[in-house]
Amino acid sequence: MFMPVGTLGSVKGVSQDVLEELGVEILLSNTYHLFLRPGVETVRRMGGLHRFMSWDRAILTDSGGFQVFSLNELRKVTEDGVAFRSHLDGSPHFLSPEKAMEVQIGLGADIIMAFDECTEYPADAQRGRDSMELTLRWAARCKNYFEEHKGEVPWGHTEVVELRSAGRPRAAVPTRSEATQALFGIVQGGMDAVLRRESALRTVDIGFPGYAIGGLSVGEPRELTRDIVFSTLEHLPSDRARYLMGVGTPEEIAQYARAGVDMMDCVLPTRAARHGLLFTSEGKVSIKQARYAQDESALDPACECRVCLRYSRAYLRHLYASNELLAQVLNTVHNLHFYLASMRAVRAWIRAGDAAG
Amino acid sequence: MFMPVGTLGSVKGVSQDVLEELGVEILLSNTYHLFLRPGVETVRRMGGLHRFMSWDRAILTDSGGFQVFSLNELRKVTEDGVAFRSHLDGSPHFLSPEKAMEVQIGLGADIIMAFDECTEYPADAQRGRDSMELTLRWAARCKNYFEEHKGEVPWGHTEVVELRSAGRPRAAVPTRSEATQALFGIVQGGMDAVLRRESALRTVDIGFPGYAIGGLSVGEPRELTRDIVFSTLEHLPSDRARYLMGVGTPEEIAQYARAGVDMMDCVLPTRAARHGLLFTSEGKVSIKQARYAQDESALDPACECRVCLRYSRAYLRHLYASNELLAQVLNTVHNLHFYLASMRAVRAWIRAGDAAG
Repeated sequence: MFMPVGTLGSVKGVSQDVLEELGVEILLSNTYHLFLRPGVETVRRMGGLHRFMSWDRAILTDSGGFQVFSLNELRKVTEDGVAFRSHLDGSPHFLSPEKAMEVQIGLGADIIMAFDECTEYPADAQRGRDSMELTLRWAARCKNYFEEHKGEVPWGHTEVVELRSAGRPRAAVPTRSEATQALFGIVQGGMDAVLRRESALRTVDIGFPGYAIGGLSVGEPRELTRDIVFSTLEHLPSDRARYLMGVGTPEEIAQYARAGVDMMDCVLPTRAARHGLLFTSEGKVSIKQARYAQDESALDPACECRVCLRYSRAYLRHLYASNELLAQVLNTVHNLHFYLASMRAVRAWIRAGDAAG
Repeated sequence: MFMPVGTLGSVKGVSQDVLEELGVEILLSNTYHLFLRPGVETVRRMGGLHRFMSWDRAILTDSGGFQVFSLNELRKVTEDGVAFRSHLDGSPHFLSPEKAMEVQIGLGADIIMAFDECTEYPADAQRGRDSMELTLRWAARCKNYFEEHKGEVPWGHTEVVELRSAGRPRAAVPTRSEATQALFGIVQGGMDAVLRRESALRTVDIGFPGYAIGGLSVGEPRELTRDIVFSTLEHLPSDRARYLMGVGTPEEIAQYARAGVDMMDCVLPTRAARHGLLFTSEGKVSIKQARYAQDESALDPACECRVCLRYSRAYLRHLYASNELLAQVLNTVHNLHFYLASMRAVRAWIRAGDAAG
């Protein structure tokens, strides 16, 4: 499955009912961003992220590790964790394996991620090994903390509550069962296939219900990304969820899914949409181009999304060129539909293979 | 009826299907803005504004006069028309009564407006009279041009066209019948009740299917606005549409509708929404305030819009405070629903009076 990114508990510009209509089954939200705004205590008191954002389908939160590394030049990494400053106001903060677990338990996503160090690219051999070892020690600490505190999720404490003074219930956002969250481990090891193998085997030894491949899309060539994904994948158990983090184009998504990756997320469809870059069955369309100014055809004639069924390229081009809010909304809806349809095609391909097999 | 403002052929952030669901029956679009972007030729070639924006309900375009006066410090008014420079790129343009008709016929809205001079406030007696006389001469020129060219609307030239290469028709945007547009006159006369009366009577003498009260909300006190509206209204025929331009708060809208105004438009619900100011049955709510950060209640417990039925004040406050696109989308949907519901209440009040009557 493909997970659209809803950084701050919202997929930019798209309301939850449209996400449901698009067939989104699971969203990714960013712990780092929610930790800073609105803060974990607010989300916890609101009953967790599902109820806070009125989203009854699944949510995965990342650990915050990637943002701490990518958004903070002045971070300080120790064995204990990472000290960093908010990219918003410079205020000092600290995340450790235990703190990242505490925060993610408070947010209450269905799937939460171990706190890892994302090794920079390029990195020399010693640095790669040290970083991988640190991530492994942190993974064990995450699991320990999670096992002790997993009962503290803000679910199931209350029944569906009457929220409206007029006495009518709000659209159902049921509180969850007594089930706990699932904590996934993350494989690191930089661009070294040997380290990746070791990281995978030792993370599996710690034992998680799912495993992510992290530390990719950090500036390396796409060929290298692919090699590392494939060489890591073979060391991860096929009866556990395998999640490739932060990758990639529609073609890559389909390729990795066919290779056995179960879950992927990427900001590309939503971010590109906001910059007028649209994915279609005929290739990429940069809707800002003047050539579309009087083009009455649908953005993608083969697409059945609500944007392609209703609007012309000329109108979408006008909205984008005029900096209209609706451009970002409609472009995002289309790109998400394109990604999700790609994944549905892969699932059909897999089922056909199973049936033939 | 209340007409939401879709300046550039889009109500900012709200897709057309949501506008339909909200019960919007007629939109206002701005000739001045569409004239500059995407240009009338593009809209005309796309079959007119309805088809360009995929909106099968009614549209009214203003004449461009108000924007020429409010957005252009360096305009030059002559008997012939107004020379001005684009607020976008400084390029020189010219609008006259004839040109404003030509542009509005090309855009193809259902209702189009005479090109008028919006008298500044305050203005002395001579300036008020001169400006009113100019608007009257321009109104006659508009009518003349319109009568000669009204057959040139970009409607009805073709049947519903197969737009999609896959052979499936896009959601129906039927081309219109052979009917022509309706041209409304505009009453000016500044803040002088005597001039307003004269402007009304002489505009009615020219003869239009509907009359607008223009030149208000230009900086005058609200009490004065109300006095001028009421004193003008009595000189307009009750069997023709009476349209009050660019006014006002939900209370004013309801008050004017009960007094006999048939049509109103205002940017307030949409613009205020984008600034986090929301109208509710319990008064105005500034959703940015920290007091709502952990408020689980609906924005307006008495409201049945899709925003109030699904989201909490806490979530809306978070979206706004985090500068999320969805804040503008959801806030706009709620405010429009509030305005439209207010108008529905007035219509029920009028029908009850007729029934009692």
